[in-house]
Amino acid sequence: MSKAIRVTVWNEARHEKLDPAIAAVYPEGIHGAIAEGLVGHGFQVKTATLDEPEHGLSVAVLAETDVLTWWGHMAHHEVSDEVVERVHARVLEGMGLIVLHSAHVSKIFKRLMGTTCELKWRVANENERIWIIEPGHPICEGINEYIDLPHEEMYGEFVDIPAPETLVFISWFKGGEVFRSGCCYRRGRGKIFYFRPGHESYPTYYRSDIRKVIANAVRWAAPINGPTTTLGNVKPIEKLID
Amino acid sequence: MSKAIRVTVWNEARHEKLDPAIAAVYPEGIHGAIAEGLVGHGFQVKTATLDEPEHGLSVAVLAETDVLTWWGHMAHHEVSDEVVERVHARVLEGMGLIVLHSAHVSKIFKRLMGTTCELKWRVANENERIWIIEPGHPICEGINEYIDLPHEEMYGEFVDIPAPETLVFISWFKGGEVFRSGCCYRRGRGKIFYFRPGHESYPTYYRSDIRKVIANAVRWAAPINGPTTTLGNVKPIEKLID
Amino acid sequence: MSKAIRVTVWNEARHEKLDPAIAAVYPEGIHGAIAEGLVGHGFQVKTATLDEPEHGLSVAVLAETDVLTWWGHMAHHEVSDEVVERVHARVLEGMGLIVLHSAHVSKIFKRLMGTTCELKWRVANENERIWIIEPGHPICEGINEYIDLPHEEMYGEFVDIPAPETLVFISWFKGGEVFRSGCCYRRGRGKIFYFRPGHESYPTYYRSDIRKVIANAVRWAAPINGPTTTLGNVKPIEKLID
Amino acid sequence: MSKAIRVTVWNEARHEKLDPAIAAVYPEGIHGAIAEGLVGHGFQVKTATLDEPEHGLSVAVLAETDVLTWWGHMAHHEVSDEVVERVHARVLEGMGLIVLHSAHVSKIFKRLMGTTCELKWRVANENERIWIIEPGHPICEGINEYIDLPHEEMYGEFVDIPAPETLVFISWFKGGEVFRSGCCYRRGRGKIFYFRPGHESYPTYYRSDIRKVIANAVRWAAPINGPTTTLGNVKPIEKLID
Repeated sequence: MSKAIRVTVWNEARHEKLDPAIAAVYPEGIHGAIAEGLVGHGFQVKTATLDEPEHGLSVAVLAETDVLTWWGHMAHHEVSDEVVERVHARVLEGMGLIVLHSAHVSKIFKRLMGTTCELKWRVANENERIWIIEPGHPICEGINEYIDLPHEEMYGEFVDIPAPETLVFISWFKGGEVFRSGCCYRRGRGKIFYFRPGHESYPTYYRSDIRKVIANAVRWAAPINGPTTTLGNVKPIEKLID
Repeated sequence: MSKAIRVTVWNEARHEKLDPAIAAVYPEGIHGAIAEGLVGHGFQVKTATLDEPEHGLSVAVLAETDVLTWWGHMAHHEVSDEVVERVHARVLEGMGLIVLHSAHVSKIFKRLMGTTCELKWRVANENERIWIIEPGHPICEGINEYIDLPHEEMYGEFVDIPAPETLVFISWFKGGEVFRSGCCYRRGRGKIFYFRPGHESYPTYYRSDIRKVIANAVRWAAPINGPTTTLGNVKPIEKLID
Repeated sequence: MSKAIRVTVWNEARHEKLDPAIAAVYPEGIHGAIAEGLVGHGFQVKTATLDEPEHGLSVAVLAETDVLTWWGHMAHHEVSDEVVERVHARVLEGMGLIVLHSAHVSKIFKRLMGTTCELKWRVANENERIWIIEPGHPICEGINEYIDLPHEEMYGEFVDIPAPETLVFISWFKGGEVFRSGCCYRRGRGKIFYFRPGHESYPTYYRSDIRKVIANAVRWAAPINGPTTTLGNVKPIEKLID
Repeated sequence: MSKAIRVTVWNEARHEKLDPAIAAVYPEGIHGAIAEGLVGHGFQVKTATLDEPEHGLSVAVLAETDVLTWWGHMAHHEVSDEVVERVHARVLEGMGLIVLHSAHVSKIFKRLMGTTCELKWRVANENERIWIIEPGHPICEGINEYIDLPHEEMYGEFVDIPAPETLVFISWFKGGEVFRSGCCYRRGRGKIFYFRPGHESYPTYYRSDIRKVIANAVRWAAPINGPTTTLGNVKPIEKLID
């Protein structure tokens, strides 16, 4: 494919507006940092945020989005159900979805998973080591066997998610927890990747290794030109060939 | 465990009321036939139907239900969202759920799967052969390597469900289709089994092999006395032992 | 990646030598037909056959192979254990492997699966319909929702394989059987795809849809530049960062 | 089932003979401690060790074994290939297999997995925390949400195993590693559970929580009375019913 994958980077973008400490970490917003990383990997990138009309996710925008990345935390409940259903339908049609960090309890991820997606957490400037479990998986291209993050929020098991189709990463936290931090799913024709790191107070999305993982996930999740599948009442095979 | 597993057999129970031809097949209702089969396998069985208050699924009834079986078809939309959320929460807590035939598009199954669960279908008195794919799985105990159903409704792929954690059966239909007809899932602490056969116009639920599969699935899906898992903000390990 | 994926097409190539009827179907050998299809999809393609020295699979050849396709039937036992171990090691290192039809009982596939890989079969000019189960999977790109093969050998369940990580196709056969006919596995860093069709007496490998599936599988199975993973005795993290 | 599950506890039993420090930890052998735990859970238990004729695993012994547990470390290479093939065949027939700790590189586990099963390790009196990932799985019955082991050998990812069908536990180690420490597989009709803890120098197999996990795994892995499956050349369905 010569055409660039079209990515829409969605962000709630509230911490950055309300808290100067967060704004200092992400002056262009978390979406700005994620988008910058993706541009550097050759994708065609737009951003969209909660406070835009339709949260920036109109029918037209989604129709031209191959892969959507999603970051949210303090305002999940403000995302309209209509937009959630619209994104859900697009994922089932084939749009890829990269769910980042605290978006584990976003409406769209819970809608797709069917579970609460709740977990343990702790903000303690803890160091995280993300271990690669599937070294041959395309999401691990160009990454070392682990990624050390000097400061991150802790997320711990048990996390109430369906078992991933492929578990790509497991995180270790200094305080004693582990976490399934890279999880691949398919729903309908869409591919979904949950990637754990990215608390708003740490500069995680500026790191080249984290950006590389997100770029790899975008490539993995991009839609393919698959078959049209018939649904509903169908006739038997017209002529059984023989 | 000496205590019998407590099963609640839920049925929409509308075809049997509205259509004398269906009532002739299932004079005690589809739930009556399913319940009779489960009693014969030693479970403690109740029934519940759509037209009862709270659809027969009060908080108290669900609290005393280890495994719920679900049959619905023409009135999925009449099931109240409140009851669906109640059942959903109980599944995540550990209650088993056996989803039968046309309940593939029940609110509760779609809620748990996160997809449309739509498929191909045809009512043509077609014969179905259900092949066993996992001969060592407990749901296959006491069954032959295939089950022949002389007349059933056809369901065909692609069916829009998440890939099952374990695929136990695949159906063959004379008209040219195949179907993943025995699908195991886990959501939260709950186990879910989707089992395909059981169109209302055929006496499928009187068959001993079909009853055996449902009984096996009930045993597989029964809750266990698993760990309480902590959620939310947690402290680090108090003393790292050494 | 601008560099073409390097594919080695391996064939036992005995039926074509011993049986004029088969030679008439595949005058350039089964490997010739498969290789021609792959060249048409832009890969850099070599062939190798059983009767060459080291079966054409020297250390040097394998070192320059990104993806190996394997067809064998009547002479599995003549493949040397040394070459099998060599291929096995390369798969664990990351070389992709596409296992075709009767190679389900090849030494290399059984070595990787750990099971007998035995199944039911029947040669009866039966028609096969291959249904797509994962319409969003890259192996299904550009394919219709099913592939009709007018004449093929039947393979039926139960087939003694580990449950595939992703089940992409299920075949329907007119005589009453079903089969998991497109199966994805990971072993070490290597990706393995089993694809069912291709009995020697039918011109299956000239079909554009079958060639497209094999080409898609080659792309999916191609190695990535993943992390080097350390094995054996290791020290603890030198400085826990904080 | 009123009949007790018949378990054979296999141990290499060399460390205990050669090293007084290990003999002091396990005066009745590692097998003695494991067997004692299983007897306490109501199973019918035998033991077998490497230095017995046929390693104590004659055809007759295996024929009367429902579930085999396997511990080995320093003498994997002394296990005869004939016995390995015999155990392998019994697993495919339905015998359960519980693979313990350093048996990750036993001949039988590698034979069933098809990979090297190699990993990182370190003996440093490190503490291990085993987190439960599937709180509704029967192997987690009666266990807390984690098991703390004050001293164990470390095993770290990447471990070269096929992705488990169900991942039940993940271990955290103080030195910075994680490990998939409870892994369920099916091969043929047999169920296999790999359980990580149990280095010879620590009294791990006397702990009630570890014994409970092994007992739960035995129940999960016990064979069922599943269908006989036909293999080889078969006829089409004699009468397609209707």
